[in-house]
Amino acid sequence: MPEKNIYDLIIIGAGPGGITAAIYAARNKMNFLVISMDIGGQMNWSSEVDNYPGMPDLTGIQITTKFFEHMKDYDIKVKKEEVIDLSKKGNICIVKTKKYAYKSKAVIIVTGKKPKKLNVPGEEELAGKGLSYCATCDAPLYKGKITAILGSGNSGLEAALFLSKYSKKVYIMDILEKIRGEPYLRQKVLANKKIIFIPKAKTKKILGKGKVEGLVYESDGKETTLKVDGIFVEIGLITKVNFAKSVKKNQWGEIMIFRSTKTHEENMTNIPGIFAAGDVTDIPSKQIIVAAGEGGKAVLAAFDYIHKWDKKYGNKK
Amino acid sequence: MPEKNIYDLIIIGAGPGGITAAIYAARNKMNFLVISMDIGGQMNWSSEVDNYPGMPDLTGIQITTKFFEHMKDYDIKVKKEEVIDLSKKGNICIVKTKKYAYKSKAVIIVTGKKPKKLNVPGEEELAGKGLSYCATCDAPLYKGKITAILGSGNSGLEAALFLSKYSKKVYIMDILEKIRGEPYLRQKVLANKKIIFIPKAKTKKILGKGKVEGLVYESDGKETTLKVDGIFVEIGLITKVNFAKSVKKNQWGEIMIFRSTKTHEENMTNIPGIFAAGDVTDIPSKQIIVAAGEGGKAVLAAFDYIHKWDKKYGNKK
Repeated sequence: MPEKNIYDLIIIGAGPGGITAAIYAARNKMNFLVISMDIGGQMNWSSEVDNYPGMPDLTGIQITTKFFEHMKDYDIKVKKEEVIDLSKKGNICIVKTKKYAYKSKAVIIVTGKKPKKLNVPGEEELAGKGLSYCATCDAPLYKGKITAILGSGNSGLEAALFLSKYSKKVYIMDILEKIRGEPYLRQKVLANKKIIFIPKAKTKKILGKGKVEGLVYESDGKETTLKVDGIFVEIGLITKVNFAKSVKKNQWGEIMIFRSTKTHEENMTNIPGIFAAGDVTDIPSKQIIVAAGEGGKAVLAAFDYIHKWDKKYGNKK
Repeated sequence: MPEKNIYDLIIIGAGPGGITAAIYAARNKMNFLVISMDIGGQMNWSSEVDNYPGMPDLTGIQITTKFFEHMKDYDIKVKKEEVIDLSKKGNICIVKTKKYAYKSKAVIIVTGKKPKKLNVPGEEELAGKGLSYCATCDAPLYKGKITAILGSGNSGLEAALFLSKYSKKVYIMDILEKIRGEPYLRQKVLANKKIIFIPKAKTKKILGKGKVEGLVYESDGKETTLKVDGIFVEIGLITKVNFAKSVKKNQWGEIMIFRSTKTHEENMTNIPGIFAAGDVTDIPSKQIIVAAGEGGKAVLAAFDYIHKWDKKYGNKK
């Protein structure tokens, strides 16, 4: 029972996975919509990306710009609306934003991840006042200052290297004893004289009145106060997919995706017609090139699903 | 029981999946080897690639060049040897080429596909003498001539569009009644005055003495002779993975890959330590961006495997 104004496909998110899906959808002359509050997603937070094959040594913003220009070649527009609910009514997907309810045959969720919070006193009050979740965005504000990065995973190490170009001293702190991240970045960080690693440090409190003045951390049962001008939180990411209540997720809140080698379908969620790709899914590799590849797989699987839908319910586009 | 000269990883193939894996391996300071008879693989046969996000409107050769330059930044060398056998002896992978036998902890197979043959009289004798499996490579030889493309899938349509820039007339033939391929390409082909579609045409024979002069096809039980100067075979692809006898394949000869959401492993074959990615696998989307993404997933899964290997058997690199 097809209704009026049914899109073939709605893509929720416009990071590397969403943009790849959109380019394929445009090439295939689909009647589709991209809904996202931003363009580029997590790519924008990277200070240096050198592992997207064919496009060496760019900032995240530069990569986003290249993706965005590629989208423009196909005249793809992004609706800047926040999705608050996704459900299915019969064979129709309903995507609700704060403004409208959109209908489609299929949906691809590519909403990525957002930074995890510390949940310590002072964090909420001082967020945006010296406490940041995006080193790439805010590093230039700390020229000649002292900064601290909380978390020594890849993104923490990248943040440290980037901040060291501006700050006179950069602490990088981790609750573990050893610095983390991939060897390539680790070596660069350890060789950098401006960067000081503080192991086994658990942040207890952010200090400051109106702006960050320092932090308190605990190490081996002892509390220490560290005076810093800026704090960058890099302790991991969480998914942004509360709107999809009936979509199955794993223990980390990531959407579980499935393959059917029988029907040759990929990137399916537990709900027919709802696909997912990129960092929001339970694929462990959180990488730009992987998200883009997964976006390609998801959109081609969605095309198959839409063709079957049209055969079964009639193509009223 | 680790032996001497054991690589962490051997990557067999240097198309988009292999190059991505190699870039990640270099960044992670792995002791690895890339073995391939060519660089770029199937990418090189594309006349126009506009769906690798961020790098619009390039020829396949141009994309290969960009990938190759990215590899050079990391000083990655490719051994030009043909792999004739892959096996496991205990926990060691043995990769035999015509020259040597290399040992490694893990292997990624990314050997892609090669063109399927027609298997009709005249094909073998006239291959390279007017009969080609690569339109991108040979189209410029047919300036002002008449050419025929056998097969109207995406690669056939791309070949037709590319050939129409040189040939005065281009036939595109398919055993099916309707032209295939994605709508975007189909429209471009059908709008092109130089290209003529011949439906329901089954090629029976390639004609010519020393060079192609025409072909015979059957349609609705009737045989027709078509005079052409060049013939391009675009009837599909087969995998190049005979060397991996014990690796499980599906009915199309594609390597079956598996996920373990439990151990968070990806792109595993049935043999521990042997991974696969790209067009050689049973992932249905045969696309450059997908192959690159899968190469990224496979190499990150291989890193996990290698770390476990080192813990279990000792790291002797």
